[in-house]
Amino acid sequence: MGMVGGGPGSFIGPVHRIAAELDREIELVAGAFSTDAGRSREAARSYRIEEDRGYADLAQMLAAEKQRDDGIDFVAVVTPNHNHLPSARAALQAGLPVICDKPMTATMAQARELAYVAREAQMPFALTFTYTGYPLVREMRDRIAAGALGQLRKVVVEYPQGWLAGEAEGKQAEWRVDPELAGAGGCIGDIGVHAFNLAEFVTGTRVNQVMPDLAAVVPGRRLDDDCTVLLRFDGGMRGVLLASQIELGELNGLRIRVYGADGGMAWRQEEPNSFIWHKADGTTEIVRAADASLGAAATAMTRIPGGHPEGYLEAFANLYRDFAGVLRGKAANMLPGLDEGLRSMAFIDTCVRANAEDAGWTELKI
Amino acid sequence: MGMVGGGPGSFIGPVHRIAAELDREIELVAGAFSTDAGRSREAARSYRIEEDRGYADLAQMLAAEKQRDDGIDFVAVVTPNHNHLPSARAALQAGLPVICDKPMTATMAQARELAYVAREAQMPFALTFTYTGYPLVREMRDRIAAGALGQLRKVVVEYPQGWLAGEAEGKQAEWRVDPELAGAGGCIGDIGVHAFNLAEFVTGTRVNQVMPDLAAVVPGRRLDDDCTVLLRFDGGMRGVLLASQIELGELNGLRIRVYGADGGMAWRQEEPNSFIWHKADGTTEIVRAADASLGAAATAMTRIPGGHPEGYLEAFANLYRDFAGVLRGKAANMLPGLDEGLRSMAFIDTCVRANAEDAGWTELKI
Amino acid sequence: MGMVGGGPGSFIGPVHRIAAELDREIELVAGAFSTDAGRSREAARSYRIEEDRGYADLAQMLAAEKQRDDGIDFVAVVTPNHNHLPSARAALQAGLPVICDKPMTATMAQARELAYVAREAQMPFALTFTYTGYPLVREMRDRIAAGALGQLRKVVVEYPQGWLAGEAEGKQAEWRVDPELAGAGGCIGDIGVHAFNLAEFVTGTRVNQVMPDLAAVVPGRRLDDDCTVLLRFDGGMRGVLLASQIELGELNGLRIRVYGADGGMAWRQEEPNSFIWHKADGTTEIVRAADASLGAAATAMTRIPGGHPEGYLEAFANLYRDFAGVLRGKAANMLPGLDEGLRSMAFIDTCVRANAEDAGWTELKI
Amino acid sequence: MGMVGGGPGSFIGPVHRIAAELDREIELVAGAFSTDAGRSREAARSYRIEEDRGYADLAQMLAAEKQRDDGIDFVAVVTPNHNHLPSARAALQAGLPVICDKPMTATMAQARELAYVAREAQMPFALTFTYTGYPLVREMRDRIAAGALGQLRKVVVEYPQGWLAGEAEGKQAEWRVDPELAGAGGCIGDIGVHAFNLAEFVTGTRVNQVMPDLAAVVPGRRLDDDCTVLLRFDGGMRGVLLASQIELGELNGLRIRVYGADGGMAWRQEEPNSFIWHKADGTTEIVRAADASLGAAATAMTRIPGGHPEGYLEAFANLYRDFAGVLRGKAANMLPGLDEGLRSMAFIDTCVRANAEDAGWTELKI
Repeated sequence: MGMVGGGPGSFIGPVHRIAAELDREIELVAGAFSTDAGRSREAARSYRIEEDRGYADLAQMLAAEKQRDDGIDFVAVVTPNHNHLPSARAALQAGLPVICDKPMTATMAQARELAYVAREAQMPFALTFTYTGYPLVREMRDRIAAGALGQLRKVVVEYPQGWLAGEAEGKQAEWRVDPELAGAGGCIGDIGVHAFNLAEFVTGTRVNQVMPDLAAVVPGRRLDDDCTVLLRFDGGMRGVLLASQIELGELNGLRIRVYGADGGMAWRQEEPNSFIWHKADGTTEIVRAADASLGAAATAMTRIPGGHPEGYLEAFANLYRDFAGVLRGKAANMLPGLDEGLRSMAFIDTCVRANAEDAGWTELKI
Repeated sequence: MGMVGGGPGSFIGPVHRIAAELDREIELVAGAFSTDAGRSREAARSYRIEEDRGYADLAQMLAAEKQRDDGIDFVAVVTPNHNHLPSARAALQAGLPVICDKPMTATMAQARELAYVAREAQMPFALTFTYTGYPLVREMRDRIAAGALGQLRKVVVEYPQGWLAGEAEGKQAEWRVDPELAGAGGCIGDIGVHAFNLAEFVTGTRVNQVMPDLAAVVPGRRLDDDCTVLLRFDGGMRGVLLASQIELGELNGLRIRVYGADGGMAWRQEEPNSFIWHKADGTTEIVRAADASLGAAATAMTRIPGGHPEGYLEAFANLYRDFAGVLRGKAANMLPGLDEGLRSMAFIDTCVRANAEDAGWTELKI
Repeated sequence: MGMVGGGPGSFIGPVHRIAAELDREIELVAGAFSTDAGRSREAARSYRIEEDRGYADLAQMLAAEKQRDDGIDFVAVVTPNHNHLPSARAALQAGLPVICDKPMTATMAQARELAYVAREAQMPFALTFTYTGYPLVREMRDRIAAGALGQLRKVVVEYPQGWLAGEAEGKQAEWRVDPELAGAGGCIGDIGVHAFNLAEFVTGTRVNQVMPDLAAVVPGRRLDDDCTVLLRFDGGMRGVLLASQIELGELNGLRIRVYGADGGMAWRQEEPNSFIWHKADGTTEIVRAADASLGAAATAMTRIPGGHPEGYLEAFANLYRDFAGVLRGKAANMLPGLDEGLRSMAFIDTCVRANAEDAGWTELKI
Repeated sequence: MGMVGGGPGSFIGPVHRIAAELDREIELVAGAFSTDAGRSREAARSYRIEEDRGYADLAQMLAAEKQRDDGIDFVAVVTPNHNHLPSARAALQAGLPVICDKPMTATMAQARELAYVAREAQMPFALTFTYTGYPLVREMRDRIAAGALGQLRKVVVEYPQGWLAGEAEGKQAEWRVDPELAGAGGCIGDIGVHAFNLAEFVTGTRVNQVMPDLAAVVPGRRLDDDCTVLLRFDGGMRGVLLASQIELGELNGLRIRVYGADGGMAWRQEEPNSFIWHKADGTTEIVRAADASLGAAATAMTRIPGGHPEGYLEAFANLYRDFAGVLRGKAANMLPGLDEGLRSMAFIDTCVRANAEDAGWTELKI
């Protein structure tokens, strides 16, 4: 695995490294970690890989690694959003599979181009919508698909954060509030898109209409930092999506509640090893990572016995485990890819436009 | 105290009785509990009051009680919504103060008339927005008013219930889904209005615009049973209100979160004896009913030491305690009255109309 | 109902008044609230009863009330422990039933005498072990009795408090740390005895051996303020009881966990409206006050729908409701009485003695 | 790193592998994973290391690896307890540092021998008392050491599990209930020892007396599966330790509460990213992994931002990170070693003996 981005100060680069390697199916061996050659070598050292495999740019990495017997066999793109397309395109066109951080790209047009390129290249492309990697999220999806809640009626998905309630400070914050680097969506593109993806993933149902209410709450901010989006899904399910970066004191409070004619389920990312299931018989169960009743998908993605908490890194690693399977020829299964990427970009794009135009309910098309 | 409504099968009648009497400042002594004379006497027996003070209608009660030295000195209206106006009007015009269950009336026009009547009569009028009676809700209000969160930015108020997810069965359910008895609002009028009132109460700020998304989810239902309303407040605060009666498994999950430039607070009705306070210094405090730091308003409304949970009945009793104070000449303080009633009726009315007309963002005026 | 004790500054007097009257089956009409005549009249006023029914002592109350047509028909004893015996004895011998706060008396000898007197008088005698009044505690007891957990193996009951971690200040604290007023047990007699009673109540099984570890942690304290007691029950069940008044920050954290060969259950007093049930099939259920699956005992003791929290006062009121039933000739059912009183006094007595003598495992006999 | 044990069916082997490699400072390259040569090679494959570095026994591994330029530079011992001594001794005497799973050995005599060997060899020796690796456990320790709770008075540490409530089935269970493989302690040696170590670690204070109550609850079991131990610490602090493997439904419920004259703290392993702090001023804080107030020790051991849960594997990895530091010459800091090993073995040994002899309070000496 070769990485693009993830240099000094990156939050998500080391996360990708740990996640990729957790199950020892993948090894980080090279990277174009920074556009500054010195910083890229410095990053290579910090990742404990050979210094000369810390390249100054992606083209260099692709060229040099191709010459090696033990060269990289896929690329992980972990740059700010505006570099997703050029990076992924170059890798795919060089014949390498790509796993890319979300959102897919900075703009809808870029997403379409990237999808075109990937399909042309016939190379695997995966997107790290991390939260779909939690075993109990997959268990919810499987149970809902099997009819545990009956006909679906309502989903509420929330993603409160508070870390951008003040001035954006530090590398992580700064690019996220800059339209040149992040794209047209701020909060909606950074975390709203996770919530959107999670809602479609868990319910197995697609959003077909949105009614967004986006705003930049912090004075002077150029991108939205607080979002509510009303949703309609195929089949008539109603939904509400809340995402915010200005809810002071909230850390990473992603949660989802799904209700059907026969029950309800609720899961929280900050306590990810269980979910609540309100059952048709009126009882309420806590489904736990330990339970013998868990299906194959969740069980396969659990590494240690119940009560020994697994967290964010393990969920992330589950995506890489899926990806490693794809590289070996397995089906992508629950791993998000082009379709999820296009849908999520369409979601961002539609919300931003409809909000700017005060368009009210707007169809979500890709 | 004389009661109108609250006969056999009533949920809220016995609640009013217990709440009114909890602090021994008030005694239930008479009632027009049912329009059926026999059932009204039966109710009198069940409340352990003299049988002949269980009247067949309000007019009878007002006339008979006036003749007594120990006659009632105020009326509690606990009927379905469509009877709030006629009952309250008759009592007020007979010179008796009124405490009335929410919502104020079945329609906006009725609310205006009731307000007119009450002002003409110069009689106290209170509305039992129960949740404002919780000591820690009052503590939040006081701390927010004192600037604990800085400039307010966002409120999220949710009221999930699941008990009307199937066919409406039983006395409690049936009138609530019947527009003739409940008024134009279903879920929005039954519980959405509590959430609205709580948001204004806690933040001390008024909603000036709404964007409602109401629907009847259960097939055949004539009133809304699932609502989301986007909100704008004076001063620019943004808000979201969620209320539902079809979220299966949810009981009475009212909760409110408020965020400002300097912090955040969160409270849940199902565990009402504490709230979370994210502070400006980055720490998070659990404020508990026990705490020495509580202000006078919360302390006065707490009957037993921290750790001995007080619940819904005690919160309700706090409203009656306030009302008893008003009858003795005290200021209404935090007790909801005409203003809160009119605002909440305007909220229901505006949401129902704007939703029906697909009007998008709509001004909230009273 | 006439009260002994409960005068100005009392915590438990007003609690008894509210609990007794909550269901309107009982009315507080008289009291020997204080041994100071003026303070007793002051208390009468504060309870809103006729001032001349605030008597200077119990003998006076018994004599005066006997003369009235509407005189009291039972006595509630809410004094510090050393007055339980003389008060209850006088009332019983005057032919009045008695409901008494726990512990039964200050000493084992007094308890035996009180039991003798009550049996001689053939008058009902009840003890307010409050926590047995919680509906979900009764539900646990019924389910366990019905075999939900299989053969019982283990109980852990904890009662952490922190309010006596410093100098004992105020009326409530002072008598509790004074052996003359409280008896030989400090923490063990004040709250340990609740935990003991709860363990026997919920499991339906009797303790037959104890191994106590009691100490006075706060410098200068004359009674224990921190206790652990190892337990053995009939049938071989093992147990641990923890009670403390010096665990700073803890409020009233009574909790109980019971395990059998086929499952486990856990309940917490500070969130009393649900309990956890680990089932034989490996799933975990949250049993809630709302649930249709609740049995008759719990349902009868629940006043309002699930999700509207009921708390300590309602649990207390359930004991008075039982007591009112007994006065009308019903069976005592789950209401604690002489047997529970004697057992709990034997528990205190045995623990204090065995601890003082360093006696190790000691038989619990009554 | 070379591993001893951890072959097919092992729970803790893969945990060590992941933990060791998480920060990329250490790499698993060889192992004597099983005493069956074929199974050891199979394990090598499953760990994705070269098959011929899956050795049939430790001696072979030590010999073969010594010949390699890239041979192992330390040994991780993850066998059942009875093999800890021979494995660690062989490695140490071959001049290799050792990191060993807890408990140190199967018997006290073995522990003494191992300590002697390690000191003679002047080689680093570490014990994976996993729970000391949680960042917030370290934060508690640091704050308590700095006086946050004032003079310590009481610690309650609990470790409930339920997985051995029935017949012991499967490789993990079977050796743990066999005195030949596990040593004289069952539950007390498997998890009680974690609780003991955690209590000493967090409070920075040593146990000097124990009063154990151990039993084999499951019929036919030869080792204890349910334990309570009363504790006394240097300085007079009182303590209670509860550990059980038969509390059905409990997963891995380790928790600790510490109280002093000026406050209290509570932490739970199943939600490890925060703890509760009852402060001297009467307020209660939730200290979270995110907080800016965290000290250097906790911050250094946190890999991702607050709200992204880190769990058991990350805590375990923190011990390996410490160990890697020690190999580079750093101080052992908070990493448990010989001293903690000897103390914990003395704890097991003393509890088992005192319990067998019904000895009551017994001094804990090493």
